[in-house]
Amino acid sequence: MTKYNFFAGPAILPKQVMAKAAESVIEMGDMGLSILEISHRSKEVVEIMENAVSLTKELLGIGDDFEVLFLSGGASSQFYMSAMNMLGENETAGYVDTGAWSTKAIKEANAFGNVQVLSSSSDKNFSYIPKGYDIPSDLKYLHVTSNNTIFGTQFQDFPDSQVPLICDASSDIFSRPLDMSKFGILYAGAQKNLGPAGVTLAIVNKEFLKKQARETPTMLDYNTHVKKASAFNTPPVFPIYVSMLTLEWIKANGGLSGMAQRNAEKAKILYDEIDRNSMFKGTAAAEDRSLMNVCFLPVNEDHTAAFIEKCAEAGCVGVKGHRSVGGFRASIYNAMPKEGVETLVEVMKSFESAHA
Amino acid sequence: MTKYNFFAGPAILPKQVMAKAAESVIEMGDMGLSILEISHRSKEVVEIMENAVSLTKELLGIGDDFEVLFLSGGASSQFYMSAMNMLGENETAGYVDTGAWSTKAIKEANAFGNVQVLSSSSDKNFSYIPKGYDIPSDLKYLHVTSNNTIFGTQFQDFPDSQVPLICDASSDIFSRPLDMSKFGILYAGAQKNLGPAGVTLAIVNKEFLKKQARETPTMLDYNTHVKKASAFNTPPVFPIYVSMLTLEWIKANGGLSGMAQRNAEKAKILYDEIDRNSMFKGTAAAEDRSLMNVCFLPVNEDHTAAFIEKCAEAGCVGVKGHRSVGGFRASIYNAMPKEGVETLVEVMKSFESAHA
Repeated sequence: MTKYNFFAGPAILPKQVMAKAAESVIEMGDMGLSILEISHRSKEVVEIMENAVSLTKELLGIGDDFEVLFLSGGASSQFYMSAMNMLGENETAGYVDTGAWSTKAIKEANAFGNVQVLSSSSDKNFSYIPKGYDIPSDLKYLHVTSNNTIFGTQFQDFPDSQVPLICDASSDIFSRPLDMSKFGILYAGAQKNLGPAGVTLAIVNKEFLKKQARETPTMLDYNTHVKKASAFNTPPVFPIYVSMLTLEWIKANGGLSGMAQRNAEKAKILYDEIDRNSMFKGTAAAEDRSLMNVCFLPVNEDHTAAFIEKCAEAGCVGVKGHRSVGGFRASIYNAMPKEGVETLVEVMKSFESAHA
Repeated sequence: MTKYNFFAGPAILPKQVMAKAAESVIEMGDMGLSILEISHRSKEVVEIMENAVSLTKELLGIGDDFEVLFLSGGASSQFYMSAMNMLGENETAGYVDTGAWSTKAIKEANAFGNVQVLSSSSDKNFSYIPKGYDIPSDLKYLHVTSNNTIFGTQFQDFPDSQVPLICDASSDIFSRPLDMSKFGILYAGAQKNLGPAGVTLAIVNKEFLKKQARETPTMLDYNTHVKKASAFNTPPVFPIYVSMLTLEWIKANGGLSGMAQRNAEKAKILYDEIDRNSMFKGTAAAEDRSLMNVCFLPVNEDHTAAFIEKCAEAGCVGVKGHRSVGGFRASIYNAMPKEGVETLVEVMKSFESAHA
């Protein structure tokens, strides 16, 4: 039986990417060596890293005004690293609080400077994206979380801000085209749309980086990694390699517009069924619904376990919701085929027939 | 032709480990999903992580007085993280400078407290391990680099110290039994004896950790990772998985005594040939020679490129020396079979016959 992986992250990757990755674990090209055992200074790995950078730039449509870094430590490390680098003791940054990950970013930034939470959707369990708040023009930056994996909300448009955005795009990077001119730093843990866990993408605007706020340990200074093309220390070679393969797959499948179109189509199929089906209800405000993480509840709470069981029987795994929201969450990242969503919708329909 | 991988790191791993890893990239057990796409909260990944911790404890013979953490960021991150956590502004730590990596550790620690370099072998291009220096009993800790990948030296015995050691064991962890009672923290980037690049082992003595020196960003506090069993954030699942497979291989092959015995045998074969062969000379003081990284020079410098070419023709790759030492470096970690070393020795003998 085909398994459809709806886990929120680490998450589904394209089958072709995994097949190629497995081959290279046995032998990288015709080197006679595995990708797991070759030097990060070898020409093969240097090419992989250069290719990953240039694909990132090509897909996002950015030029030499940005540096593309492949770091480690996850978005959780970018929460403090971005503030440590960019927020001076007497400077103020704005944060929009859209849930768990934003809240953590705010906590870490507080150690470095003044943090102003411009708006929060905590009043309604983060079920919407705040709008209509003022963005002071003297902020050092404005921090946003583009997609909220736990709560199933997503910025459809980014705030109209005079100050650069720092954006945690961990769960929707490469899912749609972005106007990169808005961003000072865009960072993302790989383990949703980009690759396996273990590498973190940071795209840094060079002009913005000139406004660095303090000295840091060598490894925590973005400039260290800029100067050494992400190889100041031994980078996480295999996670970067799989990310490169995924970027090639994205390019071959219509780039970010292609991804956006398919993602919109898949999300519509699922949200339409949630709205139609008498057994389920969505949790996020309709206009802020995430195209990546679709959160929904059973109308009858007693049905939770039974529905998850029916999903599993049909090969749909990972649909249990996060404890902060409950119910169900179907993560339908780039690599989720339309058939996966259709299979889930069939289960929803059968569930309604059986219980309504 | 069989390729023998003598690269210093990322480095050779057991063939069986890579075969199993490749299988799991296609499908993890009978889950129908790849190891690259499954949640770090899944029972399968939780078991992998628990297994990696318990194998580490079993192989090193440590109990509940130590915490075993799988982090990211490499030893380069442990340079500052260990000092940030453990060295107060008014405290003093001792460092032994045995070359490039020690030097970097010293540089990073300087930002946090008083650093006393107790001894250095910089006077002879780090070709020996300093001995006979005093270790003040009021130091917070003593930092050593157990094996020096670049210079081919290794502590055969650790200093007799009243204060806990912090040890960078990146390039010889799991190559021999250790008296772990000496260590406050032992850390190691995985990419030599443990696994692929992208995960960092930190073994922390609980009593020592109680003497933490300051508050840090959440991700940089060892306690964060202790409390969440290395899963506070999404850990680098695949590098940890491959590390677990390697630890299983070590256990199945005689544990650390088995490794030590084979490593001593392999190193003896190679050093004996260096000492015998009229074309080559060793670089490290005989009593401090590393069993992991064997550095040697051609007697005639003009022979460098020709010898490397002969090595490559015989399938021995990665024997070029680091620019700080020149000549040749054969890294013969745990996974290097004796046949690899014998093949290299044959090339050395033929080279002598052809040129002497």
